[in-house]
Amino acid sequence: MVENIEKSSALFEQIEKMVEWLACFGRSERNGVTRLLYTKDWQQAQQGVEGYMKGIGLCTYYDDVGNLYGRLPGTNQNSNVILTGSHIDTVRDGGKYDGAYGIIAGIIALQYLFKQYGSPKKTIEVVSLCEEEGSRFPVTYWGSSNITGGKKLADINDIKDSEGISFVKAMNEAGFGHGHHCPPKRNDLECFIEMHIEQGIVLEKEEKTIGVVSHIVGQRRYTITVEGESNHAGTTPMGLRKDAMYAAAEMIQTLIEKGKNTSPELVVTVGQIIVEPNVSNVIPRKAIFSLDIRHSEEEVLNLFCQETFQELELISLKHQTRISINNWMDETPVKMCENLNKLSETILMKDNISYKKMTSGAGHDSQIFGQSIPTLLLFVPSQNGISHSPLEFTRTEDLEEGIKTLIKVLYELAY
Amino acid sequence: MVENIEKSSALFEQIEKMVEWLACFGRSERNGVTRLLYTKDWQQAQQGVEGYMKGIGLCTYYDDVGNLYGRLPGTNQNSNVILTGSHIDTVRDGGKYDGAYGIIAGIIALQYLFKQYGSPKKTIEVVSLCEEEGSRFPVTYWGSSNITGGKKLADINDIKDSEGISFVKAMNEAGFGHGHHCPPKRNDLECFIEMHIEQGIVLEKEEKTIGVVSHIVGQRRYTITVEGESNHAGTTPMGLRKDAMYAAAEMIQTLIEKGKNTSPELVVTVGQIIVEPNVSNVIPRKAIFSLDIRHSEEEVLNLFCQETFQELELISLKHQTRISINNWMDETPVKMCENLNKLSETILMKDNISYKKMTSGAGHDSQIFGQSIPTLLLFVPSQNGISHSPLEFTRTEDLEEGIKTLIKVLYELAY
Repeated sequence: MVENIEKSSALFEQIEKMVEWLACFGRSERNGVTRLLYTKDWQQAQQGVEGYMKGIGLCTYYDDVGNLYGRLPGTNQNSNVILTGSHIDTVRDGGKYDGAYGIIAGIIALQYLFKQYGSPKKTIEVVSLCEEEGSRFPVTYWGSSNITGGKKLADINDIKDSEGISFVKAMNEAGFGHGHHCPPKRNDLECFIEMHIEQGIVLEKEEKTIGVVSHIVGQRRYTITVEGESNHAGTTPMGLRKDAMYAAAEMIQTLIEKGKNTSPELVVTVGQIIVEPNVSNVIPRKAIFSLDIRHSEEEVLNLFCQETFQELELISLKHQTRISINNWMDETPVKMCENLNKLSETILMKDNISYKKMTSGAGHDSQIFGQSIPTLLLFVPSQNGISHSPLEFTRTEDLEEGIKTLIKVLYELAY
Repeated sequence: MVENIEKSSALFEQIEKMVEWLACFGRSERNGVTRLLYTKDWQQAQQGVEGYMKGIGLCTYYDDVGNLYGRLPGTNQNSNVILTGSHIDTVRDGGKYDGAYGIIAGIIALQYLFKQYGSPKKTIEVVSLCEEEGSRFPVTYWGSSNITGGKKLADINDIKDSEGISFVKAMNEAGFGHGHHCPPKRNDLECFIEMHIEQGIVLEKEEKTIGVVSHIVGQRRYTITVEGESNHAGTTPMGLRKDAMYAAAEMIQTLIEKGKNTSPELVVTVGQIIVEPNVSNVIPRKAIFSLDIRHSEEEVLNLFCQETFQELELISLKHQTRISINNWMDETPVKMCENLNKLSETILMKDNISYKKMTSGAGHDSQIFGQSIPTLLLFVPSQNGISHSPLEFTRTEDLEEGIKTLIKVLYELAY
């Protein structure tokens, strides 16, 4: 077991500097970070990370979709690989921590372990995954899905970005997709470990330093359309209306109210509404709204949908409107590895680090890896829960505790 | 009293042809009518109506804002004037009946009366009011308000249309506002009588031919802004949200529900909603929605606002959001003349014409006249309640019953 890591200021400073250094690649006007897949900023960020990896003595290589690896070879040549890391891409005007932190944590952990303990028994690699956000092309988890085999080149043949540039062209121009690098699919992974910011306010509110993720929640998204009848707001008595807004308001309230009473962990969001004709003195003929529901158990999502959608039908009937419910996203919940969670909890308890066993309401590369290999996802707090924004912030003290935990977990697994 | 008007097909045909003829001025691509104030189409329509008036022997003249009059002089030269008519302007892509019917009815009635009974004792005039809708400039009831003195040239000095053309320039180019015509303000009116389509579905639903309007409702419009906090739809537990959409949905439901329980005649409409950032996976930070309420009694509107706005404050508090309620229209209810209503009802009952005493939920020139002189507003049914649309339709049988009623009312008042 790793003994108490010295309380020097060196680690703290290295983390602080490395966060700022990596955030320079793709710095946006609003002081955020924009690194979209295969763009110049993305390429330079990967090259920068590659240089850093080389600098601390890791063997580096890319796969053919642009995932970048830094390898610390194990003495046991037959061992599978312990993989850690996260994604290098960002949303437009994102923060310095989302994705970046997992890569930084992996690099610093490997540097520390090699310096203190020399070569591990099992090979450890840190990965800078090429893409997770889906911010340039309508494709998410492109990096991790290629590694696990869930996606492949053929899947993106017809896909273009908002400027009409094809996925294939962008990839080729960045130097990938030609077969010059190794194929992305891997069969030699023992496990995946991802450090990430929480992107929520739970750890901060509960004053916990580390989040140990038990599940990444299942996520369903719907578009619900309510159709009534447009009429004059002054000349149509209340009893003769088919008011799509009125019906939608009752449905939205029912959905969220019901969500709160179904399970404490269920989250229900109506983030978007579009009304037609959307004029103050005309009764709306149509209301279209979104529904986003997430929970760690498929059965809870099923039950919620089954019961609530029946109620929506009744509400629609009562208002003499027509309703259609269209599901356009259905991601099942993914369980993280129990053994790896237990190992982390043992380490955290021993070192007296406050932590919370929790679910992740956001999607992460860990949900892709977690479907085929043992996966560990650890969170550090996000100030005010803000993410996908230049205001994204995590205190360096918290980043440091996360990295120390990663170091100890990797030591237990690889040394 | 006018004896039963002959059941010849002549009147029916004249009405049908005149509706189509007038609709040709400003015919739109979608087969609707667009006659915006002082445009070429508007000018040609007024000139057309002027020609028709001359053709049946009326003395015609304009006032200086463009109201067009056709005068049937009375034998009693000291009498005040009995005025009938409606507005010539339309909304964009409006129908053939809104406004136009009142002008057509007046012209046909005067032609019939003069042909049957010769000159009246009191002078009768039919007016083609220049503007009511506010469709080109942000000014409504421009024609009637100039006649009653509620508005004058100085009020529109800084006003422009959506293309930047000033009200004054448009008026001057159409030949008005130079002082070449008589001043619009009149002190010689005995009463105003307006025939109009209902623009609602009440007469049709209740199978009544004529609506006798007791009040034009008071109308208030508000913009209600609810401010909460934007957060990640996946990582923010329900208990930590300040969801502006959730709060707004409850408020909208409360407003409409409460409206239905306050008074059978109160109408409550939320026609418009704008949500920010309006993205399916982000909890809305802001919801801005409109509120339109109408009733014939000021006290009912006061009571509704007082009680319901208090409830909205409580809902806002419960959701930890902030609410602001901004009133931007407040038109008081206007009572139509009881004696003229009684006269109409007597005529309708005698002739066994089905009618309904009702309020008008829409605004009309009659609410401007009704504030200073005795005013009568009679409705004919609108098919499916559709108005402000190329689909606007009233059966010629119903138009005819309305005109016959007008003839009889005018006879009683002027002969």
